[in-house]
Amino acid sequence: MAQTHAIAAAGPGAPLEPTTLERRELRPDDVCIDIAYAGICHTDIHQANEDWGSAIFPMVPGHEIAGVVSAVGSAVTAHQVGDRVGVGCLVDSCGECEYCQTGTEQFCRSSVPTYNGVGLDGENTYGGYSRQVVVKDAFVCRIPEGIELDVAAPLLCAGITTYSPLNRWNAGPGKNVAVVGLGGLGHMAVKIAVAMGAEVTVLSQSLKKQEDGLRLGAKNYYATSDESTFSALRGSFDLILNTVSAELAVDSYLAMLRVGGAMVNVGAPGNALSYNPFSLIAGNKVLTGSMIGGLPETQEMLDFCAEHHIGAEIEVISADQVNSAYERVQNSDVRYRFVIDTATLGHS
Amino acid sequence: MAQTHAIAAAGPGAPLEPTTLERRELRPDDVCIDIAYAGICHTDIHQANEDWGSAIFPMVPGHEIAGVVSAVGSAVTAHQVGDRVGVGCLVDSCGECEYCQTGTEQFCRSSVPTYNGVGLDGENTYGGYSRQVVVKDAFVCRIPEGIELDVAAPLLCAGITTYSPLNRWNAGPGKNVAVVGLGGLGHMAVKIAVAMGAEVTVLSQSLKKQEDGLRLGAKNYYATSDESTFSALRGSFDLILNTVSAELAVDSYLAMLRVGGAMVNVGAPGNALSYNPFSLIAGNKVLTGSMIGGLPETQEMLDFCAEHHIGAEIEVISADQVNSAYERVQNSDVRYRFVIDTATLGHS
Repeated sequence: MAQTHAIAAAGPGAPLEPTTLERRELRPDDVCIDIAYAGICHTDIHQANEDWGSAIFPMVPGHEIAGVVSAVGSAVTAHQVGDRVGVGCLVDSCGECEYCQTGTEQFCRSSVPTYNGVGLDGENTYGGYSRQVVVKDAFVCRIPEGIELDVAAPLLCAGITTYSPLNRWNAGPGKNVAVVGLGGLGHMAVKIAVAMGAEVTVLSQSLKKQEDGLRLGAKNYYATSDESTFSALRGSFDLILNTVSAELAVDSYLAMLRVGGAMVNVGAPGNALSYNPFSLIAGNKVLTGSMIGGLPETQEMLDFCAEHHIGAEIEVISADQVNSAYERVQNSDVRYRFVIDTATLGHS
Repeated sequence: MAQTHAIAAAGPGAPLEPTTLERRELRPDDVCIDIAYAGICHTDIHQANEDWGSAIFPMVPGHEIAGVVSAVGSAVTAHQVGDRVGVGCLVDSCGECEYCQTGTEQFCRSSVPTYNGVGLDGENTYGGYSRQVVVKDAFVCRIPEGIELDVAAPLLCAGITTYSPLNRWNAGPGKNVAVVGLGGLGHMAVKIAVAMGAEVTVLSQSLKKQEDGLRLGAKNYYATSDESTFSALRGSFDLILNTVSAELAVDSYLAMLRVGGAMVNVGAPGNALSYNPFSLIAGNKVLTGSMIGGLPETQEMLDFCAEHHIGAEIEVISADQVNSAYERVQNSDVRYRFVIDTATLGHS
């Protein structure tokens, strides 16, 4: 067992404080990663606040992990010491169910979250706000040359969460894609959809980030606080990717879809939304959701991003800035992802 | 202009009474059809009651029309006198927009409904509760040998409304398909999905029609009034086709879908439904709707039904039974479609 430095929340809503934790001895199929950067996902804050039901404390958040392999178990062939690698939201699954067999491990009933979870061995999992992590080889992705580790870290959650539905719902040349919200997820969605060849429109609460949106490759930028946006864009989009967690008027968004178009929720409020079924029937429209992505698609996304030189827009912070970063995320005051330089956690 | 016998509602909610109406002189691309049978669709009742906004009276309902060609215009090549043909919900469209060009005329902004509509010539349209109808050739489908005209009539609306989403969402071998509601639409959905090779489950309010459902080819039959149905069927279906107009607990139905499964509404209440976005996200599930089908797909459906010897289950009635049939439809007291023998309308 190796001790490593980390920051942890002692209980729900508690500030993150320096700590040390034990990572397990390498099993034959394990990879030990020296973490270089860990992204701060809004999910981390929800989990640390126990917003989504009973959580495990102390909690070391972090499921946007980028680093370098420092050791491998005896049976590992896919990764070598020195490899640049990433870990996302999952660190294990049953390996046998239809989802594991088809590379959609996120739907395996036994899948193990990177933190705030319990491994198949019964041990709690601790995430990426740490100097080192030990992960089963199949849950470790290669980060190709062409993306720096700092801007790669957020791809492991924000990247795959947006890439997967853009890919599944055919964002590409000739398609009009709207991205609702220009935050951590939204800015990745814009970059990826643009790289896929789609014409991208940002639908944001205000025009505050318009310049950024256009710089990231969006062709159009509209404020959803302006009612005329909805009439102007009626019947415009093949795909609307909703990355915001705020409540929204579903029918007004569906009306902006073309016939056969799809609106995909990756962000969503915890409470119910309402819609008129005729908004779907009159136009064969689709309302759907998407949950991260499986391991093969995560690797595909990383390869795609490397090929298109896509990383997240980040603000690198040190470990002692994490608590204030959490506040800024909650105030939407980040462009567009905080990434913790884990070297500032001390040495393991 | 030729006079023809019909039955019409003089105003909203008025009983249908015998009348005569003029059908237009044949244009070069027109087909005159001696109607043999006209199905009674629940839509007819909503329209005649003006449930869906301002309607045109007198109204001759009927968009499930089967008959025989009695005359053709000079430019018609696709149909000949004596051909068995059908007409569904549409009798014209612009012919030039992307929807007309891709055979999804139901989405053309200028599409003309078979009744309660205004033609591109400015004349009101009158439907199939009539001895004759004159329709542009492109909106006339062939009814192949292998289906009798009486059981074919309902295919022109109930058939295509269910065939189209079953086809689009890949009902077929290895797929578990649930049909919600065993009425005019639902019983067609069961027959078509079974013919496509899917394993079909009926989800009905009660077990009253269980014997029928199994006879039509369903493998399973559950009552949705029994709460245990929803837990027993959790994660079971690739596709749920909802044919009922009653309000339902959307999340409970989405929970019966497998990962990646789709729930398609073809029936729907007029008011809003609510759903929890996480019901879609956790399982990449799809909530969608479907509106009839275009002309090429309607022909494809008729060919499919002929090949599989599928017609509607019908009760043939005479013209003077239509008003009581409307009452019975509203009480769900029909197995499963009323079809008017238009010979009982008198002779044109």
